[in-house]
Amino acid sequence: MANESRPAERNIGTVAMRWHGHSLELLDQRLLPTEEHWITSEGASGVAQCIRDMVVRGAPAIGISAAYGVALAARHAGGGDWKAEIRQAIRELAESRPTAVNLFWALQRMERVFHECHSLDEAIKRLAAEAQSIHEEDLEANFAMADHALEFMNPDKPISVLTHCNTGALATGGYGTALGVIRRLHEEKLLRSVYADETRPWLQGSRLTAWELSRDGIPVTLNADGAAAAILASGKVKWIVVGADRITANGDVANKIGTYSLAVLARHHKVGFMVVAPSSTVDMSLASGRDIPIEERDGTEVREIRGIPLAPPGVQVFNPVFDVTPASLIDAIVTEKGVIHNPNITGMRALFG
Amino acid sequence: MANESRPAERNIGTVAMRWHGHSLELLDQRLLPTEEHWITSEGASGVAQCIRDMVVRGAPAIGISAAYGVALAARHAGGGDWKAEIRQAIRELAESRPTAVNLFWALQRMERVFHECHSLDEAIKRLAAEAQSIHEEDLEANFAMADHALEFMNPDKPISVLTHCNTGALATGGYGTALGVIRRLHEEKLLRSVYADETRPWLQGSRLTAWELSRDGIPVTLNADGAAAAILASGKVKWIVVGADRITANGDVANKIGTYSLAVLARHHKVGFMVVAPSSTVDMSLASGRDIPIEERDGTEVREIRGIPLAPPGVQVFNPVFDVTPASLIDAIVTEKGVIHNPNITGMRALFG
Repeated sequence: MANESRPAERNIGTVAMRWHGHSLELLDQRLLPTEEHWITSEGASGVAQCIRDMVVRGAPAIGISAAYGVALAARHAGGGDWKAEIRQAIRELAESRPTAVNLFWALQRMERVFHECHSLDEAIKRLAAEAQSIHEEDLEANFAMADHALEFMNPDKPISVLTHCNTGALATGGYGTALGVIRRLHEEKLLRSVYADETRPWLQGSRLTAWELSRDGIPVTLNADGAAAAILASGKVKWIVVGADRITANGDVANKIGTYSLAVLARHHKVGFMVVAPSSTVDMSLASGRDIPIEERDGTEVREIRGIPLAPPGVQVFNPVFDVTPASLIDAIVTEKGVIHNPNITGMRALFG
Repeated sequence: MANESRPAERNIGTVAMRWHGHSLELLDQRLLPTEEHWITSEGASGVAQCIRDMVVRGAPAIGISAAYGVALAARHAGGGDWKAEIRQAIRELAESRPTAVNLFWALQRMERVFHECHSLDEAIKRLAAEAQSIHEEDLEANFAMADHALEFMNPDKPISVLTHCNTGALATGGYGTALGVIRRLHEEKLLRSVYADETRPWLQGSRLTAWELSRDGIPVTLNADGAAAAILASGKVKWIVVGADRITANGDVANKIGTYSLAVLARHHKVGFMVVAPSSTVDMSLASGRDIPIEERDGTEVREIRGIPLAPPGVQVFNPVFDVTPASLIDAIVTEKGVIHNPNITGMRALFG
């Protein structure tokens, strides 16, 4: 990755992926914050498994990983029908998670390049280069989003914000989306403090966001998800800033379960609600949030923590991973292409065609 | 306890306290649902410790336990200044938890009887009898509340409800407050299903409510607290039913952290929001919820589960145990004395003077 265009003073955070040309190393986010363990994949199946099992998570990071997965499929293709092997790899990666659209977006980009390749040698080179471009562009998009968001917020003194899930370096190509905005506020000495929802059931807030922010010296206070309303009622928080896994043509947003609750609470307390996501998250082919497939994961995530039972064995669980926030509850959608204020289909079309 | 007045067919659930005259056994609710372990207290200090450490929790159960604690103080008073010993016991019990008012209400009742006693022998007998009355009346109040609530809801077909924390037999003298209403719906074949918030950080929902309902064959589906909004948006839930730790003169309600969030969500989704609590929870001496002392507990409850770190060690945590729901977001407060529809100071005064 060429990072020359990025201002030298910007700390992009602890990136959770390392590309080696012949393999992809992913930080196993299931073991954070207690253990830093990297998993090496030499082929697309390994990468798909890492996405399915949430070794890597976060919509942008999933897209970048999948792109590297396709590059690995070319690199390690056998002597036989290399085109069939790459096609199969793309198919397998596409099935790894259903909700985040960045995955399908990245695979489409890779597929387009793949179709232009006339030899395996060409595919090996060009698919690796494309995956690296996707990664590099994601980082640049994060810097641009942070700039746009700060201009839009335009705080005249340090503010406190509340965030949900993890949208930082661990969830992206580096720096972060919503957490990138928070990093930028901190760089500009405009951040008083960050409240981080622990984000049950997977605890991305306590395990990842608190870890990432603590490492980078950004002041963070962790809270149970249920305490967010009391924090907003106290008047301490100016903005809720979250990421997105898919944004539809009318500005509806699918994001981590619990996001929709925060949007309702933000409106009730007259607190700003901002969604920060790269344009690769936008899916203009879907009319509204009702059309987004919402992944449900196994109830074990709620019933147990690291094998310790928290509930009676076998009790029924409803465990949707994402929810949909209607555009009407969102004050601003920030992408690298600009800010959509009070998003609706007109604003979305103006920016995304 | 004399249970003759209770209809024989009513299952009051797994009560978490056993009174033996010379000792009080409390089910250690910290170890549920994996272990059923009882802790025996022979004096008020042991009971106070159990309340502080949340061996016993739930506003009504705390009040009943404290009353038994005073009875034990009399029973085990030394030969010296028995009055001073009982006074000291009352003081120690009063300091065990700050938010639930049933504790202070029960201690006041015990203190009134204590002041009428002329000998230690009389105190031993009358304080034990008073504690048992408090216990028995709580159970009867729960039956009455369930009756009032069903009459108010008046469902013409089975409904689904969502609840928070644990308000069942484990939290009361038996049967439950909000969970008593749910038991009653089930008895009347008017309950489709119960969604139970897991209720972080202490997981009363998954550890206690799911356990209690599963044991009694009442259909329960567990969900992360952040999923409640998506459940309400699906239109499946007709009522949110919760308990209370303190209700002020204007109808504001302090209850488990996360309750206020549900009240805002209920209003947004036009779902009913009902608070069910005995009149011992009402504190007419406080004008509004702003006057309620809100307990904050150690951040370890959010940072760890059973010693397993969920967050970076030492990360700052905001861990309020309760929040305040303004009366304006509550559709009904149900006590054994009747139902207050759209509670306000007038309605509260009419019922509680």
